[in-house]
Amino acid sequence: MIYFDNSATTQTRKEIAEFVAKYSVEKFFNPSSVYSPAIEVKNDIDNARKTILNLLGANDGKIIFTASATEANNLILNGLARKNKKILVSNGEHPSVYETAKNLQNLGYDVEFVNILPDGKLDLEDLRQKVDSDTGLVSIIHVSNETGAINDLHTISKIVKEKNADCLLHCDGVQAFGKLKVNVLNDQIDAYTISSHKIHGPKGVACVYLRNGITLKPHILGGGQENGLRSGTENPAGIMGFKMACEMMYQDFEQKRNHIKQLKQHFVERLAESNLKFIINGNINESLDNILSVSFLGVRGEVLLHCLEKYQIYVSTGSACSSKKVGNRVLSAMGLKNNQMEGNIRFSFSEFNNIEEVDAVVKALQAEIKNLLG
Amino acid sequence: MIYFDNSATTQTRKEIAEFVAKYSVEKFFNPSSVYSPAIEVKNDIDNARKTILNLLGANDGKIIFTASATEANNLILNGLARKNKKILVSNGEHPSVYETAKNLQNLGYDVEFVNILPDGKLDLEDLRQKVDSDTGLVSIIHVSNETGAINDLHTISKIVKEKNADCLLHCDGVQAFGKLKVNVLNDQIDAYTISSHKIHGPKGVACVYLRNGITLKPHILGGGQENGLRSGTENPAGIMGFKMACEMMYQDFEQKRNHIKQLKQHFVERLAESNLKFIINGNINESLDNILSVSFLGVRGEVLLHCLEKYQIYVSTGSACSSKKVGNRVLSAMGLKNNQMEGNIRFSFSEFNNIEEVDAVVKALQAEIKNLLG
Repeated sequence: MIYFDNSATTQTRKEIAEFVAKYSVEKFFNPSSVYSPAIEVKNDIDNARKTILNLLGANDGKIIFTASATEANNLILNGLARKNKKILVSNGEHPSVYETAKNLQNLGYDVEFVNILPDGKLDLEDLRQKVDSDTGLVSIIHVSNETGAINDLHTISKIVKEKNADCLLHCDGVQAFGKLKVNVLNDQIDAYTISSHKIHGPKGVACVYLRNGITLKPHILGGGQENGLRSGTENPAGIMGFKMACEMMYQDFEQKRNHIKQLKQHFVERLAESNLKFIINGNINESLDNILSVSFLGVRGEVLLHCLEKYQIYVSTGSACSSKKVGNRVLSAMGLKNNQMEGNIRFSFSEFNNIEEVDAVVKALQAEIKNLLG
Repeated sequence: MIYFDNSATTQTRKEIAEFVAKYSVEKFFNPSSVYSPAIEVKNDIDNARKTILNLLGANDGKIIFTASATEANNLILNGLARKNKKILVSNGEHPSVYETAKNLQNLGYDVEFVNILPDGKLDLEDLRQKVDSDTGLVSIIHVSNETGAINDLHTISKIVKEKNADCLLHCDGVQAFGKLKVNVLNDQIDAYTISSHKIHGPKGVACVYLRNGITLKPHILGGGQENGLRSGTENPAGIMGFKMACEMMYQDFEQKRNHIKQLKQHFVERLAESNLKFIINGNINESLDNILSVSFLGVRGEVLLHCLEKYQIYVSTGSACSSKKVGNRVLSAMGLKNNQMEGNIRFSFSEFNNIEEVDAVVKALQAEIKNLLG
């Protein structure tokens, strides 16, 4: 198997899965219980919060654990939305932000959408024009799940805060965390979402960082877990696995980054040497090395995807979350032409991929596209 | 360790934890992806839905997976609430239903609370009086998490449907499922919540059954997972572990039920033989054998709980979800006197407990209470 769909999800690390299993049997107590083994579990969770805060470059603040980044994004948008304050989100957001913003708009909230540029990055001029003294919340994706385009959060934050110091900035960091260094303090980010299953941790767990002093409306009510912001019995084993995954992403960080950079460069070089007609979507020099979005001209991405399955090569046509929808909102917002959108394939790498796999994929692409073009 | 707090949470079965670990490494694919190993994962999830539907006595209907029963209860109440329709919930509900109902009331919804009786069961006469042609939703707990009192859902449903055939009935079955036979079809239940971690499955997964043909407002938006009702990447390994736990609860069912019945009977007999001053809360003959709520007179439950910790005996003062709150809403609604509430301890059993443990706990209770009473 060649798995080039690491932006959809990653393989859980075996050592993490085994640790989670052990923890869930041995330390199964309910962290809301008041006897000592349960308090120990509660302390483990609080230590996981500290580890993650640290990796996000925050000295303090809240880490609110959720079951998915989608849930975290919903919690932040719905929980920070105020009827008399404008909300700005970009056209390049993941559906969990975009659809939630659309829903808030339908409910009568003042929501506006900031454009993205042909390279997939946020249109900073459009942002500058749209942020005003009435804007309460801006939500911008850190790294595009479709193209890997990296938004410069430092500049975005400066634009937002200079126009309105009270405006909150949330960033969906699902594709960025573990692959870029994040510093919410330096970049003045008020809320930041990360997910476990995108970084070789267990599925069913994610979190959002929230700067101290911000009032968030809770979205799930009950026993008052997560500081009353998200009730429901915690998933301590999952949280501990998530914590491990976070830490492991930043071990030998530069080495891993170089490895993935080489994979992408090699892929692009091999494509350039081939006789394939293709366009790389986004600016390859300003996008995350883990993601390579390519449009193969004259073929349909979905057909090509299924052709690659014969080789046990797994890729996607756009993100998994948009895989079953007609068209692709983000690529369309970048101004891609129809034939470019039709032939789109997203390759996404992890540290576990290698050069030989890239060679095998390019070879398979050549054979299959030649065949499809007849 | 003697773990008599199985209503707070249960120990994950080792074989389930190991299966979950294996699945999360081997079948890590995103079920929203369109290639065959991902479709296989999607099929596994759909098969889990079928298994659970079957165990609930439903021929068809939806199983919506969530991260917790709390989330499921929030989804159902918020998702079925309509501004022009009355909502009825009981005073004996878990906080995930009760607090959500209170919040709906604050938002302007018409919410009324149905009384419970001194035995912890629903006041059927009060229900009969409160259901009317304007009632849209009734939510009643199947088995009380505080006392084990079993509500007769068949009779409750008849009362509701006879007064208003269009009124929906949701039941929180978290403490009941796996311990009682459930039949949503015979009992005309429209929605039913169950949780994995209460039945030796992994934490972080739960679900709610919803009869076909009911319009539910989604509560988490994004990629459109769970039929668009609850977006977010699924947790397939957790769901498969949950499914296993459900099936295992109903294996050798009668034998396990007898074992737990014996534990409770033995416990009550040993208490009766002792010189302890106690009151059993609720009607012991009409409550679930897994739960024994006892008030030890003259002592404070929390103090006693910590005394038992010395023996590695783990119990609770009321439910884990109310463990850190002042007072106990449910026991108070039953009309318990202050000294009875103060001295309350909830013992809750699983199939893994045994008679020797009961003897050891009663012995420890005698020594510690004697000591406390000086």
